[in-house]
Amino acid sequence: MTLSELQTSIKKHKLDAYIITRSNMFIGQDVLDEENPLLKLTGFSGSAGTLVVTPNKTFLLVDGRYEIQATRQTDKELVEVICGKGNLLSLCLGKLFKDKKAKVGFNSLTNAVQNIEVLERFFPNLSFVADDSAIFENNLCGKPCQVFEHRLEFCGIDRNEKIGNISKLIGLNGCDAYLFTAADSVSWLLNLRSNALPDTPLLRAYALLDKDGRVALFGDGLNFETEPTDFSVEPLGNLHKRLKSFKNKTIGFDAQTTPYYCLSLFEKNKITQRRLIDFCQEAKAEKNPVEISGIEAAHLRDGVALIRFLIWLEKHNKNTTELDIVQKLHDFRAKGQNYWSESFGTIAAFAENGAVVHYQPTSESNQTLTDDSLLLLDSGAQYFDGTTDITRTLAIGTPSPEMCENFTLVLKAHIALASQKFINGTSGVALDKIARAPLWNEGKDYKHGTGHGVGCFLNVHEGPQNMGMQSSKLPLKENMILSVEPGYYKEGAYGIRIENLVRVVKSGLSNDNNDFLEFKILTLCPIDKQLINKYLLSEKELSWLNNYHREVYEKLSPLLNDAEQDWLRNACSPL
Amino acid sequence: MTLSELQTSIKKHKLDAYIITRSNMFIGQDVLDEENPLLKLTGFSGSAGTLVVTPNKTFLLVDGRYEIQATRQTDKELVEVICGKGNLLSLCLGKLFKDKKAKVGFNSLTNAVQNIEVLERFFPNLSFVADDSAIFENNLCGKPCQVFEHRLEFCGIDRNEKIGNISKLIGLNGCDAYLFTAADSVSWLLNLRSNALPDTPLLRAYALLDKDGRVALFGDGLNFETEPTDFSVEPLGNLHKRLKSFKNKTIGFDAQTTPYYCLSLFEKNKITQRRLIDFCQEAKAEKNPVEISGIEAAHLRDGVALIRFLIWLEKHNKNTTELDIVQKLHDFRAKGQNYWSESFGTIAAFAENGAVVHYQPTSESNQTLTDDSLLLLDSGAQYFDGTTDITRTLAIGTPSPEMCENFTLVLKAHIALASQKFINGTSGVALDKIARAPLWNEGKDYKHGTGHGVGCFLNVHEGPQNMGMQSSKLPLKENMILSVEPGYYKEGAYGIRIENLVRVVKSGLSNDNNDFLEFKILTLCPIDKQLINKYLLSEKELSWLNNYHREVYEKLSPLLNDAEQDWLRNACSPL
Repeated sequence: MTLSELQTSIKKHKLDAYIITRSNMFIGQDVLDEENPLLKLTGFSGSAGTLVVTPNKTFLLVDGRYEIQATRQTDKELVEVICGKGNLLSLCLGKLFKDKKAKVGFNSLTNAVQNIEVLERFFPNLSFVADDSAIFENNLCGKPCQVFEHRLEFCGIDRNEKIGNISKLIGLNGCDAYLFTAADSVSWLLNLRSNALPDTPLLRAYALLDKDGRVALFGDGLNFETEPTDFSVEPLGNLHKRLKSFKNKTIGFDAQTTPYYCLSLFEKNKITQRRLIDFCQEAKAEKNPVEISGIEAAHLRDGVALIRFLIWLEKHNKNTTELDIVQKLHDFRAKGQNYWSESFGTIAAFAENGAVVHYQPTSESNQTLTDDSLLLLDSGAQYFDGTTDITRTLAIGTPSPEMCENFTLVLKAHIALASQKFINGTSGVALDKIARAPLWNEGKDYKHGTGHGVGCFLNVHEGPQNMGMQSSKLPLKENMILSVEPGYYKEGAYGIRIENLVRVVKSGLSNDNNDFLEFKILTLCPIDKQLINKYLLSEKELSWLNNYHREVYEKLSPLLNDAEQDWLRNACSPL
Repeated sequence: MTLSELQTSIKKHKLDAYIITRSNMFIGQDVLDEENPLLKLTGFSGSAGTLVVTPNKTFLLVDGRYEIQATRQTDKELVEVICGKGNLLSLCLGKLFKDKKAKVGFNSLTNAVQNIEVLERFFPNLSFVADDSAIFENNLCGKPCQVFEHRLEFCGIDRNEKIGNISKLIGLNGCDAYLFTAADSVSWLLNLRSNALPDTPLLRAYALLDKDGRVALFGDGLNFETEPTDFSVEPLGNLHKRLKSFKNKTIGFDAQTTPYYCLSLFEKNKITQRRLIDFCQEAKAEKNPVEISGIEAAHLRDGVALIRFLIWLEKHNKNTTELDIVQKLHDFRAKGQNYWSESFGTIAAFAENGAVVHYQPTSESNQTLTDDSLLLLDSGAQYFDGTTDITRTLAIGTPSPEMCENFTLVLKAHIALASQKFINGTSGVALDKIARAPLWNEGKDYKHGTGHGVGCFLNVHEGPQNMGMQSSKLPLKENMILSVEPGYYKEGAYGIRIENLVRVVKSGLSNDNNDFLEFKILTLCPIDKQLINKYLLSEKELSWLNNYHREVYEKLSPLLNDAEQDWLRNACSPL
């Protein structure tokens, strides 16, 4: 379907606008290209955005990360890109319709209950029309895939134990059952993974868990390694039938991740709805001891691959392209034990490409490294025992003093947050500002979050934990994994980002009055000293850096050969 | 009424509990002692707290500021003090009744709509009974008072202009009228003040403003300097009658500040309710140029009074009591032009009294200054042209190195926030952490907000702006006034707090990409150098301090005599 075909259809259905999200029935970021309506309709390939289509106009709403990319990828004649903060969809609908009456359609399978209900409250003048049959093609995520167990040695807790704990919570919260619609919750709960997506081993299915621990799984195209015996597997189309047995009973669901479509199923079956935050989300985010030691082991392997890559790059930093780098880094990582895939498409962005926050090289954009600029390299891997995500910014040739100054400023921001102790109960939205403070004091900022949650052989961006400008007020808890990744971007020139993963741990500072938390760094890879102006660092910052480098050397060197050790000793020598 | 009489009445009405807030019909902190049910029932005099009374138990819920004070002031046999963060009322009701059915009464004139509705959503098992006739005596705030104009030379904008602007907003938001129930909104809107309260010149009345700019004022005991001709004044009991003329029309109100009682008036009169944030609150918080220059002038006068007081104290720092200090400081301030009253009861807290965050000396607690500890002095004044609020912590005798170390740490926290630039759109809850960060890194914290809004010849604590642990997400805006007041309290030993008022201003750092804000300091009074360990300050922090002291000297010295100038020159000399 093209934009103009869609507009014809909108007119035919007498709608004044139609909302198209980037998601499928699993509300979130993980969408295959062939499922991505935004890509198909407009050419925009970014990981977040919303389309508002009216009979004669199309608006693409994106956040600051994608301002440049959205303009580059779309046709100005057809699509107006709107970029900003906050609820852009509300802003856009407000501008389009103000207090006028209008009918706004949406695909009910790809829009979360909460999003639509917020709009309904905001715009009493608009009537929102749930398009259950989907003017714009439904996507049931039915592409055939292999489903396999995430083994106990990696996931640490037996499926039955998880089911027992969660079903107890379901009963305690006054529900007869809970419908889990978030793919990472279902994957975590059942210790199952699949190869449906290239970079994320998610099992894409819904799970209906009753308070007595019975599980029914709903999904299409699922091919099991060994057929499960402890729960049923049914096509998604059967959900409606299965819900009949809960007539007049109470089912819980998370309004943030459940499609609006499910409300009509509940209503048809006279099921009492109970909105409850998905119990698996926080349980999954607080990693268990087996996961933690797996994640630490995965970071050792990832570190070794990165060191080997950096040595290679030092010898090949002329005439090498961004795509060569993506390939070579992949090759080094793929040799590691327990390697499954990359955790997202590698961002290898040279010079001005680095200022496009989520740039990924393509055959068209592919740059060749030349002299005297910066290479921003953001990459990660899925190992069976853990997920990694790291960004390093590297000097190619001789960077300018200005580049070094800005790199050092980003390093100060990184150190400020990475070394910050914080009282138990502190939310991520608050900690975000600790990293921004040094940049703000120089009149600089970065238009993305400071940190996201990371799963264990699951989503490289997982909730509920995060550290962003406007993110959730959820307090960070022990054993959550997050990234710390402040940056600075100079449009048309270069990008800088320094990213490590960290684990929230109890601080030794905790005392009778207060319980303090801090971050323990997981990522092991030197920070490019050529880019640091040491005279801008305080004594404390310098000692943070030297301590970090000592730790990197101590942990990685036993896994390297002599030449590699020599290289790393030099890269990690104190400043 | 005593607690046991109340419990008898609760039993008689077959209630399982009764909620008593500290407020009157003007939901907020400004309550006369004779109106304060918490004081009358339990002896607790703090400025925030809630009672939950069951037929045989009484719980007093207070935040961290009042933990010590509440325990000191109440009878352990009768009252159980519960202290903590978050919604203590929900926690308490949850513990008392869990999933059981129960009837919980509340005085509908002193409980805001929003608070009750949050509880109703939280506890579907409880039925909340609006006690319109008030088992516990209603308080209509009818004590006779004088009402006077806040003159244009001080308030800067004519009443008719304000009414015109706000009534336009009322119409634009689809309302026929708006009921303003916040006393500071009404005082600001009509440029009226009164002497009803000792420290805050609030006019305590409701105002009904229609979209065409007609105003009806409702209040009891109001005696006008000159009888108003441009709006009506009626007793509060007439509100019901007046609302009849809005039958089938739409009235807006703020659910946070409107008593639940008003809902029944709306319902009886078939009025469509529209919940909208009080338009006056933000308008009032962003000070106009006349207010700003008045506030700056008031701070000059306040600074002169403080310098004279500090000189006096230096000569009288033996055998002087806390109450002597309160009186003397009052006397110096009262000589200033445009002085009206103190802005709150002065906190003069020596040694261990300083650790009681909101301590105010009484004849029983009154301490005499002895050697070698700290005096925490938190005070302010209402001038016709502005409201002040300042805390200084002063060395009495020779303080210990530990005291100096902690004082310097609090100073670092103060400087970090006072000098922080921040991007336009940043909320107070985020900035709060900038001040806490240095303390947290040493395993220390303070159990109160970092900053509150301040009115102009109005509430010394005004919303909506603030900077706290869990405060509103409202972004700070240009020309809002806030306090910056981190602290550290060592129970049984001493308290430290350093507080200045600041105004939000556009930063010179603003550029094409980003709009930055910063704070401009209003308060003019030296920070006690005897308590500073300069070796713990960075170069930047030291130069902040020296610059601040230079500014204090430059601005205040022209207003002082020679001897006073000498004293100030010394107090402000560079470290």
